[in-house]
Amino acid sequence: MVTAVIVAAGSGARMEGEGDKLFLEVNQFPVIGYTWRNFDRHPDIDEIVLVVRDDILPRFESLAHEISPRKPYSFVAGGQERQDSVRNGIEAASDNCDTVVIHDGARPCVDAETISNTIQAAKEHGASVAATKIVDTIKLSDGNTRISQNVDRTHLWSVQTPQVFKINTILKAMEAVDEQRASVTDDTAACELIGQSVTLVESKKPNPKVTTNSDLPFIEFLLKE
Amino acid sequence: MVTAVIVAAGSGARMEGEGDKLFLEVNQFPVIGYTWRNFDRHPDIDEIVLVVRDDILPRFESLAHEISPRKPYSFVAGGQERQDSVRNGIEAASDNCDTVVIHDGARPCVDAETISNTIQAAKEHGASVAATKIVDTIKLSDGNTRISQNVDRTHLWSVQTPQVFKINTILKAMEAVDEQRASVTDDTAACELIGQSVTLVESKKPNPKVTTNSDLPFIEFLLKE
Repeated sequence: MVTAVIVAAGSGARMEGEGDKLFLEVNQFPVIGYTWRNFDRHPDIDEIVLVVRDDILPRFESLAHEISPRKPYSFVAGGQERQDSVRNGIEAASDNCDTVVIHDGARPCVDAETISNTIQAAKEHGASVAATKIVDTIKLSDGNTRISQNVDRTHLWSVQTPQVFKINTILKAMEAVDEQRASVTDDTAACELIGQSVTLVESKKPNPKVTTNSDLPFIEFLLKE
Repeated sequence: MVTAVIVAAGSGARMEGEGDKLFLEVNQFPVIGYTWRNFDRHPDIDEIVLVVRDDILPRFESLAHEISPRKPYSFVAGGQERQDSVRNGIEAASDNCDTVVIHDGARPCVDAETISNTIQAAKEHGASVAATKIVDTIKLSDGNTRISQNVDRTHLWSVQTPQVFKINTILKAMEAVDEQRASVTDDTAACELIGQSVTLVESKKPNPKVTTNSDLPFIEFLLKE
Protein backbone atom coordinates (compact mmCIF):
# COMPACT_ATOMS: atom_id res chain seq x y z
CA MET A 1 0.00 0.00 0.00
CA VAL A 2 1.35 3.40 -1.00
CA THR A 3 0.64 6.43 1.20
CA ALA A 4 1.19 9.99 -0.01
CA VAL A 5 2.13 12.42 2.75
CA ILE A 6 1.48 15.96 1.54
CA VAL A 7 3.29 18.46 3.72
CA ALA A 8 1.09 21.54 3.86
CA ALA A 9 2.01 22.91 7.27
CA GLY A 10 4.56 25.53 6.19
CA SER A 11 4.19 28.96 7.68
CA GLY A 12 4.60 30.70 4.36
CA ALA A 13 6.76 33.21 6.20
CA ARG A 14 8.54 34.17 2.99
CA MET A 15 5.32 35.30 1.30
CA GLU A 16 4.62 38.95 1.87
CA GLY A 17 1.14 39.88 3.00
CA GLU A 18 -0.61 37.36 0.82
CA GLY A 19 -1.80 34.95 3.49
CA ASP A 20 -0.93 31.31 3.07
CA LYS A 21 0.88 30.59 -0.17
CA LEU A 22 -0.85 27.23 -0.42
CA PHE A 23 -4.19 28.95 -0.86
CA LEU A 24 -3.09 31.33 -3.57
CA GLU A 25 -5.43 30.69 -6.46
CA VAL A 26 -4.86 29.87 -10.10
CA ASN A 27 -8.08 29.78 -12.10
CA GLN A 28 -10.12 30.10 -8.88
CA PHE A 29 -8.57 26.96 -7.44
CA PRO A 30 -5.88 26.96 -4.75
CA VAL A 31 -2.34 25.71 -5.28
CA ILE A 32 -2.76 23.02 -2.62
CA GLY A 33 -5.91 21.84 -4.39
CA TYR A 34 -3.89 21.05 -7.53
CA THR A 35 -1.32 19.20 -5.46
CA TRP A 36 -3.91 17.12 -3.62
CA ARG A 37 -5.79 16.29 -6.81
CA ASN A 38 -2.62 15.14 -8.59
CA PHE A 39 -2.12 12.48 -5.93
CA ASP A 40 -5.79 11.69 -5.52
CA ARG A 41 -6.09 10.92 -9.24
CA HIS A 42 -2.86 8.90 -9.46
CA PRO A 43 -3.32 5.13 -9.86
CA ASP A 44 -0.29 4.20 -7.72
CA ILE A 45 -1.50 6.09 -4.63
CA ASP A 46 -3.77 4.28 -2.16
CA GLU A 47 -4.31 6.89 0.56
CA ILE A 48 -3.37 10.47 1.35
CA VAL A 49 -2.29 12.09 4.59
CA LEU A 50 -2.32 15.89 4.60
CA VAL A 51 -0.16 17.54 7.23
CA VAL A 52 -1.80 20.88 8.00
CA ARG A 53 -1.74 23.68 10.55
CA ASP A 54 -4.65 23.62 12.97
CA ASP A 55 -5.66 27.18 12.18
CA ILE A 56 -6.24 26.47 8.50
CA LEU A 57 -7.87 23.06 8.93
CA PRO A 58 -11.33 24.50 8.12
CA ARG A 59 -10.05 25.66 4.73
CA PHE A 60 -8.83 22.15 3.98
CA GLU A 61 -12.18 20.73 5.00
CA SER A 62 -13.99 22.94 2.53
CA LEU A 63 -11.35 22.16 -0.11
CA ALA A 64 -12.19 18.46 0.34
CA HIS A 65 -15.76 19.24 -0.68
CA GLU A 66 -14.52 20.89 -3.84
CA ILE A 67 -12.17 18.06 -4.77
CA SER A 68 -14.47 15.12 -3.90
CA PRO A 69 -11.47 12.86 -3.26
CA ARG A 70 -11.55 9.34 -4.64
CA LYS A 71 -8.89 8.08 -2.22
CA PRO A 72 -9.18 7.89 1.56
CA TYR A 73 -7.57 10.89 3.20
CA SER A 74 -6.84 12.20 6.68
CA PHE A 75 -5.51 15.38 8.25
CA VAL A 76 -2.78 15.48 10.88
CA ALA A 77 -1.25 18.45 12.66
CA GLY A 78 2.12 19.84 11.59
CA GLY A 79 5.11 19.92 13.94
CA GLN A 80 7.71 22.50 14.86
CA GLU A 81 10.12 21.73 12.01
CA ARG A 82 9.55 20.20 8.63
CA GLN A 83 10.97 16.89 9.80
CA ASP A 84 8.44 16.82 12.66
CA SER A 85 5.62 17.42 10.19
CA VAL A 86 6.85 14.62 7.95
CA ARG A 87 7.04 12.27 10.91
CA ASN A 88 3.49 13.09 11.99
CA GLY A 89 2.38 12.33 8.45
CA ILE A 90 4.16 8.99 8.27
CA GLU A 91 2.82 7.92 11.66
CA ALA A 92 -0.69 8.55 10.39
CA ALA A 93 -0.28 6.08 7.50
CA SER A 94 -2.35 2.88 7.55
CA ASP A 95 -0.80 -0.20 9.16
CA ASN A 96 -0.40 -1.98 5.83
CA CYS A 97 1.48 0.94 4.21
CA ASP A 98 4.79 -0.24 2.78
CA THR A 99 5.83 2.84 0.79
CA VAL A 100 5.52 6.56 1.62
CA VAL A 101 5.57 9.35 -0.92
CA ILE A 102 6.47 12.64 0.76
CA HIS A 103 5.52 15.72 -1.23
CA ASP A 104 5.56 19.48 -0.70
CA GLY A 105 2.06 20.92 -0.81
CA ALA A 106 3.58 23.93 -2.52
CA ARG A 107 4.62 21.91 -5.61
CA PRO A 108 1.32 21.71 -7.47
CA CYS A 109 2.75 20.97 -10.93
CA VAL A 110 4.15 17.52 -10.16
CA ASP A 111 3.40 15.21 -13.10
CA ALA A 112 2.03 11.68 -12.98
CA GLU A 113 5.06 10.09 -14.62
CA THR A 114 7.46 11.54 -12.04
CA ILE A 115 5.22 10.21 -9.25
CA SER A 116 5.23 6.74 -10.86
CA ASN A 117 8.97 6.77 -11.50
CA THR A 118 9.94 7.80 -7.97
CA ILE A 119 7.65 5.12 -6.50
CA GLN A 120 9.15 2.51 -8.80
CA ALA A 121 12.73 3.52 -7.88
CA ALA A 122 11.98 3.43 -4.15
CA LYS A 123 10.40 0.00 -4.40
CA GLU A 124 13.56 -1.24 -6.11
CA HIS A 125 16.25 0.59 -4.15
CA GLY A 126 14.65 1.75 -0.89
CA ALA A 127 14.70 5.50 -1.41
CA SER A 128 14.33 7.96 -4.27
CA VAL A 129 13.85 11.64 -4.99
CA ALA A 130 12.66 13.69 -7.95
CA ALA A 131 15.45 15.94 -9.17
CA THR A 132 16.81 17.91 -12.11
CA LYS A 133 20.35 18.27 -13.34
CA ILE A 134 21.87 21.69 -12.87
CA VAL A 135 22.33 23.28 -16.30
CA ASP A 136 23.34 26.82 -15.33
CA THR A 137 26.84 28.04 -14.60
CA ILE A 138 27.27 27.93 -10.82
CA LYS A 139 29.57 30.11 -8.71
CA LEU A 140 30.41 30.12 -5.04
CA SER A 141 30.30 33.57 -3.46
CA ASP A 142 32.56 34.83 -0.71
CA GLY A 143 29.52 35.07 1.56
CA ASN A 144 28.83 38.50 0.21
CA THR A 145 28.42 39.52 -3.43
CA ARG A 146 31.81 38.57 -4.88
CA ILE A 147 32.47 35.36 -6.76
CA SER A 148 35.03 33.31 -4.87
CA GLN A 149 35.19 30.29 -7.18
CA ASN A 150 33.74 28.46 -10.09
CA VAL A 151 31.78 25.31 -9.21
CA ASP A 152 31.87 22.23 -11.41
CA ARG A 153 28.21 21.52 -12.08
CA THR A 154 28.76 18.18 -13.81
CA HIS A 155 27.37 16.06 -10.98
CA LEU A 156 25.11 18.60 -9.32
CA TRP A 157 21.39 17.96 -9.03
CA SER A 158 18.65 20.10 -7.64
CA VAL A 159 16.31 17.93 -5.58
CA GLN A 160 12.57 18.40 -5.17
CA THR A 161 9.75 16.19 -4.06
CA PRO A 162 8.32 13.52 -4.31
CA GLN A 163 10.79 11.85 -1.98
CA VAL A 164 9.77 8.21 -1.74
CA PHE A 165 10.84 5.59 0.80
CA LYS A 166 10.10 2.08 1.90
CA ILE A 167 8.39 2.76 5.20
CA ASN A 168 10.86 0.74 7.26
CA THR A 169 13.72 2.63 5.70
CA ILE A 170 12.38 6.09 6.51
CA LEU A 171 11.37 5.04 10.05
CA LYS A 172 14.90 3.75 10.67
CA ALA A 173 16.39 6.94 9.20
CA MET A 174 14.20 9.09 11.44
CA GLU A 175 15.24 7.09 14.47
CA ALA A 176 18.86 7.86 13.56
CA VAL A 177 18.00 11.55 13.28
CA ASP A 178 16.57 11.40 16.82
CA GLU A 179 19.46 9.46 18.29
CA GLN A 180 22.04 11.77 16.74
CA ARG A 181 19.89 14.84 17.39
CA ALA A 182 20.60 15.74 13.76
CA SER A 183 18.82 18.52 11.93
CA VAL A 184 18.21 17.51 8.33
CA THR A 185 17.04 19.77 5.53
CA ASP A 186 15.28 16.97 3.70
CA ASP A 187 14.42 13.34 4.18
CA THR A 188 17.07 12.03 1.81
CA ALA A 189 19.65 13.55 4.17
CA ALA A 190 18.17 11.41 6.96
CA CYS A 191 18.86 8.34 4.79
CA GLU A 192 22.53 9.24 4.63
CA LEU A 193 22.68 8.73 8.39
CA ILE A 194 21.83 5.03 8.04
CA GLY A 195 23.87 4.43 4.89
CA GLN A 196 20.78 4.09 2.68
CA SER A 197 21.55 5.32 -0.81
CA VAL A 198 18.99 7.52 -2.54
CA THR A 199 18.21 7.24 -6.25
CA LEU A 200 17.84 10.46 -8.24
CA VAL A 201 14.87 10.34 -10.61
CA GLU A 202 14.84 13.04 -13.25
CA SER A 203 11.61 15.07 -13.21
CA LYS A 204 9.82 14.85 -16.54
CA LYS A 205 8.29 18.32 -16.27
CA PRO A 206 9.01 21.55 -14.37
CA ASN A 207 8.07 21.02 -10.73
CA PRO A 208 8.69 24.37 -9.02
CA LYS A 209 7.76 25.26 -5.46
CA VAL A 210 5.75 28.33 -4.53
CA THR A 211 8.09 30.07 -2.10
CA THR A 212 7.46 33.74 -2.77
CA ASN A 213 4.87 35.66 -4.76
CA SER A 214 7.31 36.02 -7.63
CA ASP A 215 7.17 32.24 -8.17
CA LEU A 216 3.47 32.37 -8.89
CA PRO A 217 3.44 33.55 -12.54
CA PHE A 218 5.50 30.57 -13.69
CA ILE A 219 3.36 28.14 -11.69
CA GLU A 220 0.22 29.77 -13.04
CA PHE A 221 1.60 29.35 -16.53
CA LEU A 222 2.37 25.66 -15.95
CA LEU A 223 -0.99 24.89 -14.38
CA LYS A 224 -2.90 26.55 -17.19
CA GLU A 225 -1.04 24.62 -19.87
CA MET B 1 30.90 54.86 -23.72
CA VAL B 2 29.08 51.60 -23.06
CA THR B 3 29.01 48.91 -25.75
CA ALA B 4 26.61 45.98 -25.63
CA VAL B 5 27.96 42.82 -27.26
CA ILE B 6 25.08 40.49 -28.02
CA VAL B 7 26.32 36.99 -28.67
CA ALA B 8 24.04 35.52 -31.28
CA ALA B 9 26.38 33.09 -33.00
CA GLY B 10 25.39 29.90 -31.18
CA SER B 11 24.74 26.91 -33.38
CA GLY B 12 21.52 26.03 -31.60
CA ALA B 13 22.66 22.44 -31.78
CA ARG B 14 20.46 21.52 -28.84
CA MET B 15 17.29 22.62 -30.61
CA GLU B 16 15.68 19.83 -32.56
CA GLY B 17 14.62 20.55 -36.10
CA GLU B 18 13.41 24.05 -35.41
CA GLY B 19 16.13 26.01 -37.12
CA ASP B 20 17.91 28.66 -35.16
CA LYS B 21 16.50 29.11 -31.67
CA LEU B 22 17.17 32.82 -31.84
CA PHE B 23 14.63 33.19 -34.60
CA LEU B 24 11.84 31.32 -32.87
CA GLU B 25 8.97 33.75 -32.73
CA VAL B 26 6.81 35.02 -29.90
CA ASN B 27 3.94 37.21 -31.14
CA GLN B 28 5.41 37.18 -34.67
CA PHE B 29 8.68 38.66 -33.43
CA PRO B 30 11.88 36.63 -33.00
CA VAL B 31 13.55 36.00 -29.63
CA ILE B 32 16.71 37.79 -30.76
CA GLY B 33 14.58 40.81 -31.73
CA TYR B 34 13.41 41.19 -28.12
CA THR B 35 16.97 40.92 -26.89
CA TRP B 36 18.28 43.49 -29.34
CA ARG B 37 15.43 45.90 -28.62
CA ASN B 38 15.95 45.67 -24.85
CA PHE B 39 19.48 46.98 -25.30
CA ASP B 40 18.61 49.40 -28.08
CA ARG B 41 15.99 51.10 -25.88
CA HIS B 42 18.16 51.17 -22.73
CA PRO B 43 19.46 54.64 -21.78
CA ASP B 44 22.85 53.36 -20.52
CA ILE B 45 23.79 51.66 -23.80
CA ASP B 46 25.58 53.71 -26.48
CA GLU B 47 26.18 51.17 -29.22
CA ILE B 48 25.49 47.54 -30.00
CA VAL B 49 27.66 44.88 -31.58
CA LEU B 50 25.85 41.74 -32.68
CA VAL B 51 28.00 38.64 -33.10
CA VAL B 52 26.31 36.51 -35.73
CA ARG B 53 26.93 33.55 -37.98
CA ASP B 54 27.59 34.49 -41.59
CA ASP B 55 24.84 32.24 -42.92
CA ILE B 56 22.12 34.01 -40.97
CA LEU B 57 23.38 37.55 -41.48
CA PRO B 58 20.62 38.30 -44.02
CA ARG B 59 17.98 37.50 -41.36
CA PHE B 60 19.63 40.00 -39.01
CA GLU B 61 19.66 42.61 -41.73
CA SER B 62 15.94 42.27 -42.25
CA LEU B 63 15.41 42.23 -38.49
CA ALA B 64 17.18 45.60 -38.32
CA HIS B 65 14.50 47.02 -40.63
CA GLU B 66 11.79 45.78 -38.28
CA ILE B 67 13.45 47.17 -35.16
CA SER B 68 14.53 50.54 -36.57
CA PRO B 69 17.38 50.75 -34.05
CA ARG B 70 17.99 54.03 -32.28
CA LYS B 71 21.56 53.14 -31.35
CA PRO B 72 24.43 52.55 -33.76
CA TYR B 73 24.94 48.86 -34.39
CA SER B 74 27.28 46.57 -36.26
CA PHE B 75 27.54 42.89 -37.10
CA VAL B 76 30.67 40.81 -36.65
CA ALA B 77 31.26 37.15 -37.38
CA GLY B 78 31.23 34.56 -34.60
CA GLY B 79 34.26 32.41 -33.76
CA GLN B 80 34.84 28.75 -33.09
CA GLU B 81 34.03 28.86 -29.37
CA ARG B 82 31.92 31.22 -27.33
CA GLN B 83 35.01 32.98 -26.03
CA ASP B 84 36.16 33.62 -29.62
CA SER B 85 32.78 35.13 -30.46
CA VAL B 86 32.93 37.39 -27.41
CA ARG B 87 36.40 38.52 -28.36
CA ASN B 88 35.32 39.36 -31.90
CA GLY B 89 32.49 41.41 -30.43
CA ILE B 90 34.72 43.33 -28.03
CA GLU B 91 37.26 44.06 -30.74
CA ALA B 92 34.49 45.63 -32.82
CA ALA B 93 33.62 48.16 -30.11
CA SER B 94 34.32 51.84 -30.78
CA ASP B 95 37.69 53.23 -29.71
CA ASN B 96 36.16 55.31 -26.93
CA CYS B 97 34.31 52.34 -25.38
CA ASP B 98 35.20 51.99 -21.70
CA THR B 99 32.63 49.40 -20.62
CA VAL B 100 31.36 46.27 -22.38
CA VAL B 101 28.10 44.52 -21.62
CA ILE B 102 28.18 40.93 -22.86
CA HIS B 103 24.79 39.32 -23.25
CA ASP B 104 23.41 36.05 -24.60
CA GLY B 105 21.16 36.66 -27.58
CA ALA B 106 19.03 33.79 -26.30
CA ARG B 107 18.06 35.69 -23.10
CA PRO B 108 15.34 37.97 -24.42
CA CYS B 109 13.64 38.69 -21.07
CA VAL B 110 16.49 40.66 -19.49
CA ASP B 111 15.01 43.64 -17.64
CA ALA B 112 16.20 47.23 -17.75
CA GLU B 113 17.01 47.43 -14.05
CA THR B 114 19.32 44.42 -14.19
CA ILE B 115 21.13 45.96 -17.16
CA SER B 116 21.57 49.23 -15.23
CA ASN B 117 22.68 47.51 -12.04
CA THR B 118 25.29 45.31 -13.70
CA ILE B 119 26.72 48.33 -15.56
CA GLN B 120 26.86 50.32 -12.32
CA ALA B 121 28.61 47.49 -10.45
CA ALA B 122 31.20 47.03 -13.21
CA LYS B 123 31.95 50.75 -13.32
CA GLU B 124 32.60 50.63 -9.57
CA HIS B 125 34.40 47.29 -9.22
CA GLY B 126 35.66 46.33 -12.68
CA ALA B 127 33.46 43.31 -13.39
CA SER B 128 29.94 42.12 -12.65
CA VAL B 129 27.43 39.46 -13.60
CA ALA B 130 23.67 39.04 -13.30
CA ALA B 131 22.88 36.06 -11.08
CA THR B 132 20.31 34.44 -8.83
CA LYS B 133 20.77 32.72 -5.50
CA ILE B 134 20.25 28.99 -5.50
CA VAL B 135 17.13 28.26 -3.45
CA ASP B 136 16.75 24.54 -4.09
CA THR B 137 18.35 21.73 -2.12
CA ILE B 138 21.46 20.65 -4.01
CA LYS B 139 23.04 17.20 -4.06
CA LEU B 140 26.18 15.82 -5.62
CA SER B 141 25.64 12.55 -7.46
CA ASP B 142 28.09 9.67 -7.68
CA GLY B 143 28.35 10.33 -11.43
CA ASN B 144 25.37 8.11 -11.97
CA THR B 145 21.93 8.38 -10.33
CA ARG B 146 22.79 7.98 -6.65
CA ILE B 147 23.22 10.88 -4.25
CA SER B 148 26.77 10.91 -2.95
CA GLN B 149 26.58 13.97 -0.73
CA ASN B 150 24.60 16.97 0.36
CA VAL B 151 25.88 20.33 -0.91
CA ASP B 152 25.63 23.47 1.20
CA ARG B 153 23.77 25.91 -1.03
CA THR B 154 24.21 28.92 1.24
CA HIS B 155 26.74 30.65 -0.97
CA LEU B 156 25.80 29.19 -4.35
CA TRP B 157 24.65 31.43 -7.19
CA SER B 158 23.51 30.63 -10.69
CA VAL B 159 25.05 33.12 -13.14
CA GLN B 160 23.51 34.47 -16.32
CA THR B 161 24.21 37.47 -18.50
CA PRO B 162 24.67 40.46 -18.70
CA GLN B 163 28.31 40.08 -17.76
CA VAL B 164 29.81 43.58 -17.66
CA PHE B 165 33.46 44.61 -17.65
CA LYS B 166 35.66 47.63 -17.87
CA ILE B 167 37.15 47.12 -21.31
CA ASN B 168 40.76 47.08 -20.11
CA THR B 169 39.88 44.44 -17.55
CA ILE B 170 38.28 42.05 -20.00
CA LEU B 171 41.06 42.57 -22.58
CA LYS B 172 43.67 41.73 -19.94
CA ALA B 173 41.66 38.69 -18.83
CA MET B 174 41.42 37.46 -22.40
CA GLU B 175 45.13 37.87 -22.89
CA ALA B 176 45.63 35.65 -19.84
CA VAL B 177 43.27 33.06 -21.34
CA ASP B 178 45.45 33.05 -24.46
CA GLU B 179 48.75 32.88 -22.63
CA GLN B 180 47.57 30.05 -20.41
CA ARG B 181 45.67 28.40 -23.26
CA ALA B 182 42.77 28.18 -20.82
CA SER B 183 39.28 27.17 -21.85
CA VAL B 184 36.73 29.18 -19.86
CA THR B 185 33.01 28.54 -19.66
CA ASP B 186 32.17 32.20 -19.16
CA ASP B 187 33.89 35.54 -19.10
CA THR B 188 33.85 35.89 -15.33
CA ALA B 189 36.05 32.78 -15.21
CA ALA B 190 38.56 34.64 -17.39
CA CYS B 191 38.67 37.36 -14.74
CA GLU B 192 39.70 34.83 -12.10
CA LEU B 193 42.89 34.28 -14.10
CA ILE B 194 44.00 37.88 -13.51
CA GLY B 195 42.76 38.13 -9.93
CA GLN B 196 39.92 40.48 -10.86
CA SER B 197 36.97 39.94 -8.54
CA VAL B 198 33.50 39.79 -10.06
CA THR B 199 30.44 41.30 -8.36
CA LEU B 200 27.23 39.26 -8.33
CA VAL B 201 24.19 41.39 -9.13
CA GLU B 202 20.86 39.78 -8.33
CA SER B 203 18.51 39.66 -11.35
CA LYS B 204 15.29 41.52 -10.67
CA LYS B 205 13.19 39.34 -12.95
CA PRO B 206 13.37 35.85 -14.46
CA ASN B 207 16.03 35.88 -17.17
CA PRO B 208 15.96 32.41 -18.72
CA LYS B 209 17.89 31.29 -21.78
CA VAL B 210 16.27 29.56 -24.74
CA THR B 211 18.25 26.34 -24.92
CA THR B 212 15.70 23.83 -26.15
CA ASN B 213 12.18 24.07 -27.54
CA SER B 214 10.78 23.20 -24.13
CA ASP B 215 12.12 26.51 -22.76
CA LEU B 216 10.02 28.49 -25.20
CA PRO B 217 6.56 28.41 -23.57
CA PHE B 218 7.80 30.04 -20.36
CA ILE B 219 9.77 32.66 -22.28
CA GLU B 220 6.69 33.33 -24.38
CA PHE B 221 4.70 33.79 -21.19
CA LEU B 222 7.28 36.23 -19.77
CA LEU B 223 7.52 38.25 -22.97
CA LYS B 224 3.76 38.57 -23.23
CA GLU B 225 3.42 39.81 -19.65
